[in-house]
Amino acid sequence: MDVRVDTVGIDVDGETLGGTMLAPTRELPAILFVHGWGGDQRHDLARAREAAGLGCVCVTFDLRGHVHSKVPRERVTRAQNLADIVAAYDWLAERPSVDASSIAVVAISYGGYLASILTSLRDVRWLALRSPALYKDEAWDLPKLQLHADPDLPAYRRRRIAAGENRALRACAAYRGDVLVVEAENDTIVPHAVTENYLAAFVAARSRTARVLAGADHALSEKSAQKDYSSVLISWLTEMIVGARGSAAKRNVDLHKAAVRAAGEGAPRPH
Amino acid sequence: MDVRVDTVGIDVDGETLGGTMLAPTRELPAILFVHGWGGDQRHDLARAREAAGLGCVCVTFDLRGHVHSKVPRERVTRAQNLADIVAAYDWLAERPSVDASSIAVVAISYGGYLASILTSLRDVRWLALRSPALYKDEAWDLPKLQLHADPDLPAYRRRRIAAGENRALRACAAYRGDVLVVEAENDTIVPHAVTENYLAAFVAARSRTARVLAGADHALSEKSAQKDYSSVLISWLTEMIVGARGSAAKRNVDLHKAAVRAAGEGAPRPH
Repeated sequence: MDVRVDTVGIDVDGETLGGTMLAPTRELPAILFVHGWGGDQRHDLARAREAAGLGCVCVTFDLRGHVHSKVPRERVTRAQNLADIVAAYDWLAERPSVDASSIAVVAISYGGYLASILTSLRDVRWLALRSPALYKDEAWDLPKLQLHADPDLPAYRRRRIAAGENRALRACAAYRGDVLVVEAENDTIVPHAVTENYLAAFVAARSRTARVLAGADHALSEKSAQKDYSSVLISWLTEMIVGARGSAAKRNVDLHKAAVRAAGEGAPRPH
Repeated sequence: MDVRVDTVGIDVDGETLGGTMLAPTRELPAILFVHGWGGDQRHDLARAREAAGLGCVCVTFDLRGHVHSKVPRERVTRAQNLADIVAAYDWLAERPSVDASSIAVVAISYGGYLASILTSLRDVRWLALRSPALYKDEAWDLPKLQLHADPDLPAYRRRRIAAGENRALRACAAYRGDVLVVEAENDTIVPHAVTENYLAAFVAARSRTARVLAGADHALSEKSAQKDYSSVLISWLTEMIVGARGSAAKRNVDLHKAAVRAAGEGAPRPH
């Protein structure tokens, strides 16, 4: 998602006017949307179409164990769903229109937990987590639904967990990109302590943004909560993506000006 | 600057996950920057590099009578400078990477006066005018500098001028795109009455946005005024360009969903 800066000439009445063109390169930033447990890609389309407005490629998809999958819901594992996310990431990164160094992942709940782990396997420049869930590392290949049979899980989600003690939090601790963590104020499924554990884990992130959706529950049942989430997410994506492209343009305009000066001219001239 | 919406398939472990890709088409929106009298394109580069962050092609250029032009400053006419702007517009609209139906023109003072007239000659989707100047229609081919010899010009700029009485205002009255008019609060060169005449003329515009830069003079001598102008301009361009691309994405996502429903399926499936 670089921005080329070129001196150009515009012909008029036998004279050539000096001009400068700034043009984004063909490879666009991209956003991968990961839905939560029991959700599907349709829930992400509203956000995806808004994010597409920023001039980036957006992909939504259905995890295995959901929608028309061959794997039944009660059998699908974290390992399988993580493999799904890696496959979707790789598919997206291979598109000729995508700049693989400028990929954002936007994920919800169980999807946010897995997306955190993805950052230890693939290059994620921007990471947005809404109500990321937390699971114990044990029984990685057990069906995801069976993890809830553990009577200690609710208590685990209310404890302070150090980053070193959990695979997802370890990935967060090593993550060097920009991160947005969005919490639902009245979330009883992913309680506040989980959000605190995630936020505390992101010690190496380039930037950290934490937001609370006032009055919202885990599923964002109210339309107003969904609207608040969209607004928070799109503002953050705008700052990140438009900002990064603007920085690339600034760097190249500065180089361009220096080159013009070095050529001993007062202003860019057509070549 | 349309956004394609496609059903895609992502392969993992012998299964194909259903996905949806939203991708901006290759043609980008574009912005043409027009400097004011006595200025040059370098003044526009700071705004251009920020605007490039929105994922659009930006062009700055030098009007004749300025910088290295063969035409001396004291001889250049409005007719020539309007021809320059038309040439720059046409050059930009012909770039393969540009969507000619999504061109913005950002112009200052004398450049804003000429850019208003451009809208009657070419398709301008978005028009941003900072302190647009106003001249009488007479003596169109007289050198621009000689127009200031008219002792009535300062008074003309303080009078109420109906849109029908002036070529630039007539163009504004017929303009159907979105317009931003930015006024410098302490402008003594282009007084408030001129801004009022412009704003009153835009009767058919799709949207009108008027802003005043507090404490600013015509040239934006203070750094803070320049920063305020950049901020107002970039916010407006963001709303216009990101909004238009988001609307295109919404329309196509809706069509895509309807097509998927018509095919009798519950969710988009790979093809």
